Amino acid sequence: MRGPDYWKTRVELVEAWLDQLVRPAGAELAGGLWEAMRYSLLAPAKRVRPVLLLAVGETLDVEPERFRYAACAIECIHTYSLIHDDLPAMDNDTLRRGRPTCHVQFGEGTAILAGDGLLTLAFELLGTCPFLRAHPAIGIDVVRLLARYAGPQGMVAGQWLDMHTAAPTPSVEHVLNIHRRKTAALITAAVEIGGLMVEAPPAMIEALRVYGEAVGTAFQIVDDILDLTTPPERLGKTPGKDVQASKATYPRAVGLERAWADARAFRDRAVEAIRPWDTHGLLTSLAYLITERQA
Amino acid sequence: MRGPDYWKTRVELVEAWLDQLVRPAGAELAGGLWEAMRYSLLAPAKRVRPVLLLAVGETLDVEPERFRYAACAIECIHTYSLIHDDLPAMDNDTLRRGRPTCHVQFGEGTAILAGDGLLTLAFELLGTCPFLRAHPAIGIDVVRLLARYAGPQGMVAGQWLDMHTAAPTPSVEHVLNIHRRKTAALITAAVEIGGLMVEAPPAMIEALRVYGEAVGTAFQIVDDILDLTTPPERLGKTPGKDVQASKATYPRAVGLERAWADARAFRDRAVEAIRPWDTHGLLTSLAYLITERQA
Repeated sequence: MRGPDYWKTRVELVEAWLDQLVRPAGAELAGGLWEAMRYSLLAPAKRVRPVLLLAVGETLDVEPERFRYAACAIECIHTYSLIHDDLPAMDNDTLRRGRPTCHVQFGEGTAILAGDGLLTLAFELLGTCPFLRAHPAIGIDVVRLLARYAGPQGMVAGQWLDMHTAAPTPSVEHVLNIHRRKTAALITAAVEIGGLMVEAPPAMIEALRVYGEAVGTAFQIVDDILDLTTPPERLGKTPGKDVQASKATYPRAVGLERAWADARAFRDRAVEAIRPWDTHGLLTSLAYLITERQA
Repeated sequence: MRGPDYWKTRVELVEAWLDQLVRPAGAELAGGLWEAMRYSLLAPAKRVRPVLLLAVGETLDVEPERFRYAACAIECIHTYSLIHDDLPAMDNDTLRRGRPTCHVQFGEGTAILAGDGLLTLAFELLGTCPFLRAHPAIGIDVVRLLARYAGPQGMVAGQWLDMHTAAPTPSVEHVLNIHRRKTAALITAAVEIGGLMVEAPPAMIEALRVYGEAVGTAFQIVDDILDLTTPPERLGKTPGKDVQASKATYPRAVGLERAWADARAFRDRAVEAIRPWDTHGLLTSLAYLITERQA
């Protein structure tokens, strides 16, 4: 089972885990808060980061079960970042994953808190993970790594830079710097955490880092391209927002044609880096899927 | 050295640690993000939570140095919660710690991200803490405990409940439920983390939990009272906001006189719980200081 079939079964698994792990324990007074968290978290989504995490495990023949909590933690962080990025004070978006954005549905205050709740819960999930509690030295490394990639030198910095760049033609280096932090950082975290949790040798961890950064960059370039070229009913979010907001997108820096070529070049770099370790061809196949997606 | 002098020296220590640990490593493109984080974090403040954490250590004669990273992590979480609570979509406050609030100074988008950055950085600090890396089984417990108390069943739930309560006369049980989550949870986390990091016996950890919850509740009742009765130049934040916003405050539920009496009763409960363990009388002395403060 490879490529699209693999992806589909793993998305189902991850979504069942999310539904199970992200609920209040017992009777809960702040029910509206959890409703907002689950609304955004359980909306149909690609689950790129958890699927890549599971794929790293399967590359070393480790069952998905080991990654149940970590996969959910990473998806919680990704979802919180979408909720906060969509806020009126940020990208001011009204459509996400095919639904009204969290603040449109529940109000801004609840959306801010739903994001805060998901971000904090991510670390509670790592602290609760049976595998990491049984291997706490790995656990503390995973906590540090996830926080570093998601934090104010990683993803949060990327979002801040994205908000503060409105040059008419941004340089490609500047766009890449934003994309690396805003998108590639959390994707890299997912695959590197996979490496830590299978106790991969340092050379494989380094290959995973290169793979994650390159796949993540390719993913965001394709995202920029699709924002320009996809009809809204297929995109699941408001198209053309990047242009309206004068965002630093990759096609704006280099044009559509070179954007496609560069996305493929980043994909090839990822595939090249992981080749010595990709025993089942799974990570290669996922890199192709990510760059060939239509929405 | 006890009481006020102890507090003063420990505040200086914590503020030096914060200044040292909360900076970007190397040249950093998202400088404005870090500026906003440090602006709110390093504003003059009481540092109640880190001081209590250090005091737990000194009760078992453990030097403050062990708690450098954990103390900063807890203060980062407290500061993020203030930044987000002050946002226009939440309490819409313009003055905090004697300065314009983060979003007034830097804009809403940056304030949201500064809060996200501080919250994430808190867990990076735990993951980087030399003591917790050398004792990773304690480390993973500390991560879980801090996330649980700060998260969507703890502090974030408290803030959500606070936003969604506008009854003209809230019941005292309802106000206590909010105060326990919104304020007492993170104070309890601070003292319980202290207990974990000195490998205190379970009975002492339980006493610390009771102490933290009671001191935290007393602290918030006094806060509610001071909001009603203190001139703005001494309060450092906008006074009377709670009344304007029809907040569920303790004096609103029971009147000013009983509010003072109950604050003292919670303090006494804290003092009673910790008596068998409070070898130097330090935690008792701090409980008195917290409930006798004037601002």
